[in-house]
Amino acid sequence: MPRHTAADLVLFANALLEKSGVQRSASLATAEVLVEGDLLGHDTHGLAQLPAYLDELANGRMAKSGAPVVVNDRGAAVTWDGQRLPGPYLVRLAIDLAAERASLHGLCAIAIRRSHHIACLAAYLKRATDRGLALLILSSDPNQGSVAPFGGRKALYTPNPIAIGWPTTGMPVLVDISASITTNGMSARRIKEGNRFPGPWLLDAAGNATDDPAVVFADPPGSILPLGGIEAGHKGYGLALWVEAMTSGLGGQGRADPLDAWGANVFLLAIDPEAFGGLAAFTAQTGWLADAVHANPPRPGVDAVRLPGERALAHRARALKEGLELHPSILPALAPWAERLGVGMLP
Amino acid sequence: MPRHTAADLVLFANALLEKSGVQRSASLATAEVLVEGDLLGHDTHGLAQLPAYLDELANGRMAKSGAPVVVNDRGAAVTWDGQRLPGPYLVRLAIDLAAERASLHGLCAIAIRRSHHIACLAAYLKRATDRGLALLILSSDPNQGSVAPFGGRKALYTPNPIAIGWPTTGMPVLVDISASITTNGMSARRIKEGNRFPGPWLLDAAGNATDDPAVVFADPPGSILPLGGIEAGHKGYGLALWVEAMTSGLGGQGRADPLDAWGANVFLLAIDPEAFGGLAAFTAQTGWLADAVHANPPRPGVDAVRLPGERALAHRARALKEGLELHPSILPALAPWAERLGVGMLP
Repeated sequence: MPRHTAADLVLFANALLEKSGVQRSASLATAEVLVEGDLLGHDTHGLAQLPAYLDELANGRMAKSGAPVVVNDRGAAVTWDGQRLPGPYLVRLAIDLAAERASLHGLCAIAIRRSHHIACLAAYLKRATDRGLALLILSSDPNQGSVAPFGGRKALYTPNPIAIGWPTTGMPVLVDISASITTNGMSARRIKEGNRFPGPWLLDAAGNATDDPAVVFADPPGSILPLGGIEAGHKGYGLALWVEAMTSGLGGQGRADPLDAWGANVFLLAIDPEAFGGLAAFTAQTGWLADAVHANPPRPGVDAVRLPGERALAHRARALKEGLELHPSILPALAPWAERLGVGMLP
Repeated sequence: MPRHTAADLVLFANALLEKSGVQRSASLATAEVLVEGDLLGHDTHGLAQLPAYLDELANGRMAKSGAPVVVNDRGAAVTWDGQRLPGPYLVRLAIDLAAERASLHGLCAIAIRRSHHIACLAAYLKRATDRGLALLILSSDPNQGSVAPFGGRKALYTPNPIAIGWPTTGMPVLVDISASITTNGMSARRIKEGNRFPGPWLLDAAGNATDDPAVVFADPPGSILPLGGIEAGHKGYGLALWVEAMTSGLGGQGRADPLDAWGANVFLLAIDPEAFGGLAAFTAQTGWLADAVHANPPRPGVDAVRLPGERALAHRARALKEGLELHPSILPALAPWAERLGVGMLP
């Protein structure tokens, strides 16, 4: 497999997006965020998403130019209508504004309604932690549902990712999880690989617990269980409803409204530790805990105890040094787009 | 079993605290929060905590009077040193300040270091949701540990509760969960009842998964698994570290410091939906979702799909109407304190 530099991948993705009519600021942000997903090893949410984005652009369901419309701005509390612009463009803009405002107010929250898909949430966190900020990102897609409320059997909402990053004395901590026990993407991958889940992580349409990922895409469809599963799923359920409230609730648009196309509602919260007990006191605590995690004796079968994001950052460092080997399905899916748009194909 | 009015219980608890030397403002807030825990049916974290509080007061480990010291105040970002005052007193004060500041700034976060124990987190939420606010409360105790980092086998931090409330068009949603699959209190209860957990929710000291709650209190001690368990525990692990960062990190005091006595570090975030898309737009979405939850067909063996907090609020309404029947262990544990402090005992 060929290896590519991150710069070559960004320029290639940017060219495909620009030739599709996306304004430069949005194309470059989107290309960078997708490649960052691959650098972190989240290879289902990096450039693997680009063919679908190009299709959305070609069909007019993803906006090519413009800016978010400010619905409300109270300084530390901002609401945007994303106008269905590319999610990575909107989220990057929002992080930069939230960072600036957090240094004024100590914290800043931004709710974005009607964004398009925002790709890999972990790919945004370092932009904030590098500035000494903690960042929380929540996202839901009000136009889809694959998770049922705890106790129920009809899919109602999305897996609802929760990403959180913060600095330590060493590497930042990068959490990127969902409020469900697994996701649509992981279910599709298991089906393709002919695997089942390691436990009863899903319900079939009748509400019976199963380890079979096929129920997610069956007709009638089953559902993914909340984080915690059959026994403790009230916990993931509570988190998922919180994500719904912060994204669609604060944004003021969501499942109560007529169905729109594939998209995302987003909530970001940037926090400046300097405005609380101070950044040095913050990293003294988070750094101590990072050291204690690394010193923790692993249980049988585990080689070392790691921080959330540690594997991803090691993958990123290696890829930046040695070049990135893309998942073998990614470039073949982009080749027809390169030809159609007149962009030179990567080796 | 006798039934008591909430008012009688509050006055009884308040008398015990006042006779222990606690200033009126703190004794009444603490009594009200503890009774609210019992009203909501959280009977391990209501008046069941009062004997331990009275013991802490008698031994000088819980402060009897004073006010939190302001470490930092940036308007929407506030940091207090709680001076080891009763947690319910501090958290009530913090909620009232955060609510006031949220109406000015759209949101307000308060980090409290060196609070004493804050009891039942769900008991605080209605105070914010009744005012049309969303409230997040995170708590950890840097002086204790019963949960190991994912992949490890040595207990490092507390179950780290996460409570979140927000309004809908009908009842508020009240989430009160922990980042671990179960808690110390639930483990103690299972041991007392001679029960095991429904699955491998714990590790013994050697790191082997077990359903035996006794490992939590064994010597050497085992640990409680993060929410998600052996297979998906990286999710609860990420949430737990986030709670550590927001409580001890922002507060600037925690596990990196010398051990203190039983206590709590706390993070609160109040959000005013009016400062985003508007309260009416917020409850239109959260209310729609609440209706969709109630309309969801239950899976086999479940009678109805409920919102988080729905059972607790029904318990509360019934107890306010018919009187509250306390868990049979609670009043006998308070009787010696009533005698010692010269407070008339309840029937």
